[in-house]
Parts: sequence; C-alpha cells; structure tokens
Amino acid sequence: MDDYKKVIDALIQFRNERDWKQFHDSKNLALAISIEASELNELFLWKKESEADNVNIEKLKEELADVLSFSFLLAEKHNLDIFEIVLDKIRKNGEKYPVERAKGTAKKYDEL
Amino acid sequence: MDDYKKVIDALIQFRNERDWKQFHDSKNLALAISIEASELNELFLWKKESEADNVNIEKLKEELADVLSFSFLLAEKHNLDIFEIVLDKIRKNGEKYPVERAKGTAKKYDEL
Amino acid sequence: MDDYKKVIDALIQFRNERDWKQFHDSKNLALAISIEASELNELFLWKKESEADNVNIEKLKEELADVLSFSFLLAEKHNLDIFEIVLDKIRKNGEKYPVERAKGTAKKYDEL
Amino acid sequence: MDDYKKVIDALIQFRNERDWKQFHDSKNLALAISIEASELNELFLWKKESEADNVNIEKLKEELADVLSFSFLLAEKHNLDIFEIVLDKIRKNGEKYPVERAKGTAKKYDEL
Repeated sequence: MDDYKKVIDALIQFRNERDWKQFHDSKNLALAISIEASELNELFLWKKESEADNVNIEKLKEELADVLSFSFLLAEKHNLDIFEIVLDKIRKNGEKYPVERAKGTAKKYDEL
Repeated sequence: MDDYKKVIDALIQFRNERDWKQFHDSKNLALAISIEASELNELFLWKKESEADNVNIEKLKEELADVLSFSFLLAEKHNLDIFEIVLDKIRKNGEKYPVERAKGTAKKYDEL
Repeated sequence: MDDYKKVIDALIQFRNERDWKQFHDSKNLALAISIEASELNELFLWKKESEADNVNIEKLKEELADVLSFSFLLAEKHNLDIFEIVLDKIRKNGEKYPVERAKGTAKKYDEL
Repeated sequence: MDDYKKVIDALIQFRNERDWKQFHDSKNLALAISIEASELNELFLWKKESEADNVNIEKLKEELADVLSFSFLLAEKHNLDIFEIVLDKIRKNGEKYPVERAKGTAKKYDEL
C-alpha cells in the first residue's frame, strides 16, 4: 500500500472511530485548514527576517501535519487526487507566471 | 519515482526556474499557506449548511492545490516527510481525543 | 476626549511600556490581525447552522478585541481614520453591489 | 451623532437595503473577518523586512476597512461596545504581559 493511501486510511479510521464525519462538511473542513494554517503562522509572528526559518521544529511538524490532515480529508471527500491537482496547478501557474517575466520578482501575475 | 517525489520535484523546478527561492523563507511560506487557505474558504462564505458541500469543483481543486503546494515546499525546506508527520500527529491526537470521551462530540480536547 | 482616541492612546501606551514598537511593522501587524481572526473563528468551528450564533460571549469579546486592537494599531501607523475608511469602502461597495442586483443574494460582485 | 454610531448605521443600512441580514450569522461574519484579514496580508506576502511598511495605501485602506466593517457588524450583533471590549482586553493583557517580564521581547505570555 502506498504512503498516501496509508495516511488517508488512518485519518478516516480516526474520524470514524469518533463518529466525527457528521461535522466534516466541506465548509468546516476548509475552516479547519485555515485555523491550523494560522496556528502555523503564529510560530513566526513578530519574527525578524533573520529568524524567519528559526522555528521550534516539533511545533512546526504538528501544525503542518494539521494543515495537511484536513487538506487530505477535504480532497478525499471530493475524490480528488492530491498529486494530480498540484501538477495541474503547476501547469496553470506556468501560464500565469511565464519564466521570462516572473523571474526574480515577487509580483502577482496581474502586475507582471 | 513515486508520486510525492514527482510533485516536489515539479514544485522545486518551477520555483528555481523563476529564481523564487529567495522569497521562500519559512515565515513567508506559512503566510502563503494561510492566504491560500482563506481563498479556499471564500468558496464557502455565506453558504448555508445545506450548501456546505456544494462548491465549484474546479475552483476547489485550484485553491486546495495552492494550500498543498506551499505546504509541501515548507515540508521540503525542513526535510520533513509529510506522511510521517501526519501519522505522528494522528497518534498524538489519539491521546488528546480518546474514543470513549471524544465520540460524537465536536468539543476541544481541553473541554472533554 | 473621544472614545476612539482614548482606546488608541491606551494601545500605544501598552505597546510603548513594553518596548514593542520594534516588532510592529505593518506586515507583522497584518499577520497578527489574521491570527486573531482565526482564533475568533475557532469559536465557531464544527458548529451547525442552528448554533452559529451560540458562542461563549466572554471569549468572543476577547478575540474580537484582539482583532480590533491590531487593526487600530495598523490604522494608526498609517495615519488612517478608521471611520473615514469604512465610510469610503461602503460607498465603493455600493457601486460593486447595486441594490437591484445584489438584493437577497450572497453572490460575489463579479458573478452578479 | 458620534463617528462610530454613524458608521454602524451606514453598515446596517447597506446590509438591510440588500436583504443580507439572513447571511450574517456570527459564524459567517467571523469567517468574513478572517478572509478580509488574509486579503490584507496578501499585500505584504513575500516582502522583505525592509519593505514591510511599504504598501499600496489605497489597497491597505480598503482591506483594513473590510476587516473593520465585519468586526463592527459582529460586535453590533452581540451588542458589544467595541471601545469597552478593547479597553478590557488591554487590562487583561497587562496581567498576562507584565512590563518587567515582557519588555523588549516578543515571546508569548506562556514562555515569559
């Protein structure tokens, strides 16, 4: 069994044992992703640029795992292949951010 | 080559071709995850419970892909195995949310 | 002295006594607003529509106060009059959401 | 009539003319605050520390106004006095962050 399948199965088992599927509509899953993403950001709040990679690695692992867990559950709910949707988005972003114009700049595509 | 490796390689190639590594410190990557998570949430804003799974699937794919992309890049920056950290977190959550107390309730662990 | 002036003065005194101005660049203040907004949202996570106004009022007060505090500090940093910018935005939104088209619908302006 | 009252009245009139009160439960208002806070943060994404106050002021005004508007509507819904709750929170934060320990450090209260 591949790694992603193993993780999804573990997430679903965890959810089902607790009878939590009733709470996991897409809107609440998306909200959960956002809340966990903010907890991840809190690890960096007020940090200077020189400390911007300096983080408690155990906390980083936990918060990032929370973001990923709810993201995987939302993908699973809509039968999305997480690898396929990321590869598709990279292709689309390639059109929005052509190398010759986007190189070395952090501007948004509508300002390039 | 496995799927995750293929996706990470594509993300890094995309970033390097545009010389964007200079912008991708951990603090900014975390912020990007949060911003993309909010765009995902916007798809559900003002929706009633009865519409909470009713979403433009193409937009869902794109916004979720953005959340995943920056999450993968942050994991890669810190040499984290995304599957391992999620499995670890499920184990920890099992202790915070024991089945007998957490079953059927959406309460936070400190209110169980 | 009016109420808003009194609050801003209290916020600035609190910040200065702790020598925190050094951390309060606009980017970090904006991040703080977002993190506090997420803590506010956590009060509602997993809630059904029927419970969507049902909230611990003391926690609501605290989280909303945090959002407002950092918003006021960001406004003060850029010499913005919070009342004026909201009234200006209402005017702009009036053009984006004309009554005849926006009435009774939660659609975004670009879908009206 | 004071400034805050004037703004709240304008927000409510805007909402009522469009028959939007039906969408404005507390959970969705909190979500709207969070989404607008993220749009505010997007103005700063990828910015270096040296550019952290450097922002399109018109966009800043608009995004901050959106955060404030939904915050005011949520306060109004629960009959909260925005000035009072901020002053109360400053008092509480004074206990969590005593000057002698918090001065000059960005640590969270539980790490002081």
